[in-house]
Amino acid sequence: MQYDQVLRQKIKSRSAKVGILGMGYVGNYIARLTTGAGYQTIGFVRNKHRAKKIKKLGLKNLRAAIDIKKMRTCDICIVCVQTPIDKNKKPDLTYLSSAVRQVAGQLRKGQLIVVESSIAAGTTRNVLLPILTASGYKCGEDFFFGHSPERVDPGNDVFPLYSIPKIVAGADDISLMLLTYFYQTIVQSVVPVSSLEAAEVTKLFENSFRLLNISFVNQFSEYAQRRGLNVWEIIKAASTKPFGFLPHYPGPGVGGHCIPVDPYYLLDDARSQGVSLTLLEEAGEINDKRPQLVYEKALEILGKRKTKRKKILLIGVAYKPNIDDIRESAALKIWALFKKNGYKVSYYDPFVPKVHGVKSIEFTEKILSSFDLIIILTNHSNVQYDVLLQTKIPILDTRNTFQSRSYERVVQI
Amino acid sequence: MQYDQVLRQKIKSRSAKVGILGMGYVGNYIARLTTGAGYQTIGFVRNKHRAKKIKKLGLKNLRAAIDIKKMRTCDICIVCVQTPIDKNKKPDLTYLSSAVRQVAGQLRKGQLIVVESSIAAGTTRNVLLPILTASGYKCGEDFFFGHSPERVDPGNDVFPLYSIPKIVAGADDISLMLLTYFYQTIVQSVVPVSSLEAAEVTKLFENSFRLLNISFVNQFSEYAQRRGLNVWEIIKAASTKPFGFLPHYPGPGVGGHCIPVDPYYLLDDARSQGVSLTLLEEAGEINDKRPQLVYEKALEILGKRKTKRKKILLIGVAYKPNIDDIRESAALKIWALFKKNGYKVSYYDPFVPKVHGVKSIEFTEKILSSFDLIIILTNHSNVQYDVLLQTKIPILDTRNTFQSRSYERVVQI
Repeated sequence: MQYDQVLRQKIKSRSAKVGILGMGYVGNYIARLTTGAGYQTIGFVRNKHRAKKIKKLGLKNLRAAIDIKKMRTCDICIVCVQTPIDKNKKPDLTYLSSAVRQVAGQLRKGQLIVVESSIAAGTTRNVLLPILTASGYKCGEDFFFGHSPERVDPGNDVFPLYSIPKIVAGADDISLMLLTYFYQTIVQSVVPVSSLEAAEVTKLFENSFRLLNISFVNQFSEYAQRRGLNVWEIIKAASTKPFGFLPHYPGPGVGGHCIPVDPYYLLDDARSQGVSLTLLEEAGEINDKRPQLVYEKALEILGKRKTKRKKILLIGVAYKPNIDDIRESAALKIWALFKKNGYKVSYYDPFVPKVHGVKSIEFTEKILSSFDLIIILTNHSNVQYDVLLQTKIPILDTRNTFQSRSYERVVQI
Repeated sequence: MQYDQVLRQKIKSRSAKVGILGMGYVGNYIARLTTGAGYQTIGFVRNKHRAKKIKKLGLKNLRAAIDIKKMRTCDICIVCVQTPIDKNKKPDLTYLSSAVRQVAGQLRKGQLIVVESSIAAGTTRNVLLPILTASGYKCGEDFFFGHSPERVDPGNDVFPLYSIPKIVAGADDISLMLLTYFYQTIVQSVVPVSSLEAAEVTKLFENSFRLLNISFVNQFSEYAQRRGLNVWEIIKAASTKPFGFLPHYPGPGVGGHCIPVDPYYLLDDARSQGVSLTLLEEAGEINDKRPQLVYEKALEILGKRKTKRKKILLIGVAYKPNIDDIRESAALKIWALFKKNGYKVSYYDPFVPKVHGVKSIEFTEKILSSFDLIIILTNHSNVQYDVLLQTKIPILDTRNTFQSRSYERVVQI
């Protein structure tokens, strides 16, 4: 029997063993799907501490492994390590290349390997595939390989991962067929595309759309504010249009590991192709300037009080509501700006108990009242915002927490 | 009885008479709603020729009038004349101011006046209201006034005008109440907003969103093309994401009297407020460059054939599918580019029998075969595109007419 037939059988009977390399938030979500579908799954981690965390997920068919050699026992290998950008906003493929090299080291005939990390056009074919074929094994015969960009949206309860269509591309037709077959067993619908590059670019395009529109609404909100208009009211009104409009909302700057990152993978590749995606370049710059803008607005509010007020409280440091992820969070950048200028910064976040050794404060009226300014940066739904209104402290609200109701002490941005 | 009470009664009983100033496509659509709801409606026009056109609409309760004095007999006056931009892309309020002056000349107590034209923040309050109050009548007591930006989408059968929520703002509370009451009798839902400016800006914001995203996808399509990727496949794949994405499509440049125009009203006002909406500025420039790009692509195709081929056929000159409107159409700009460079341009458009004295050609294989290049600019649904494939002529397809199926002679842009 051919290797692809064996794999099909194993997928059909759910006896295929799945290995996941990169047990961050994406890996965790995928493990829920694979174990839920009945696949024995191994989550590969760096150390015992991480292994313990995997155990804590409490998933029946999930085990943790530190020894990469165990990857050899897996039939399907999902790579979903992070693909960040460096300080010059250039793609940093260190983690991904290293992960694929680890997989290559354990490659055996009959394995199906898929990369879910967000990457630029050509990366799967020109950077990752050669690492695997260096083994001497032939892709499409001995092993199978493709790309299926993750679309995990942490905290999104309306669209759980299972319900989000999965884009899939193969290095060859058999790989594509196998990947489609496999993903159909763990998600509701699979969307095969014609090339690895199409899959890669689709993901970058989606998140570029987000960055572009969030940056636009941020810029638009500056205009609205200057005009004395409530930007949230305008967005709400525009959202009543039943076609041709999708609302995006202003904020202190987009965080997380996708929206502020992925577009730079697209920009970098476009530049190498001689195309300048000027709108996206500009969108990135606007986003980078947001934390400074929040900081300046805060100084303006403090300045009006004409005393040397130096104690700042940030409410919400996660990059979006109802999750604990602080990566690329605008809150950290705003925090740094205050700190650099001699302010004392504390924070409250029910999802994030500790940030760089600093603990989240206790949320009592008395403690809240000891600050000179409260800045709402993430609108978690389990915060008692009404208590904030009971203090006498001015509030800078970057998230329309109070739904455009006007309060004397609340300033919106 | 107060004037507002009288008006409410007249609206309730549908005995209020409606006058519409500006019987273009917006006026026509509104007349359908008002007459359909049972209001006697007068469409004001410049001359007998236009009056005849109104009659041809065949609406039972609609009459045409040339004499503006008849506006005095109307209880409700809807102004929806065009608000274009001049050649420097500055708002041109000539038509609107003139229309409102005409209304002011006939103003009588108890009238309700509403402007539906797209305008920048402050125009209703600071430019138009003074024209009306110069009469000596008091707004909110003697007469009533407000703004309700039109959201007409010609050719949109999925969302007929009746089903599109109507944003409404009043110069005062009574005017807002009356406008809400009136529009509730002709559309499915009314969305009152807190100020005239909020209503004005909402419309501009909606169309700015459109221009921004269309320009982005146009720029992105240049990258996709350079990368050898089919941009339509990527848009289709991205569209499978059930949240956070709204598809826009590349083309030869956005036309019509809204999307390429309204954003400049927003830009102009933002500039006057010291805010530079850089993303929108850039989007406008990208859109302006599209026709040139189509022209250059055409030359590239012609150049490959190495003969002096000079006969160009444009398919579709309306600015969007299935309508007859050619205003601001990219087709006209592309036409001009060819003409300037010595090419002979013909066109075929089943919706537009004549353009500047030139007639739409007959659509036969023989006539089609006499051209050197066919460019599809608007994808009307009643064109037999398959016949184009039967000719031996190269085709430049700017609208994905052939749904990404590949044909040797079809080049996409």
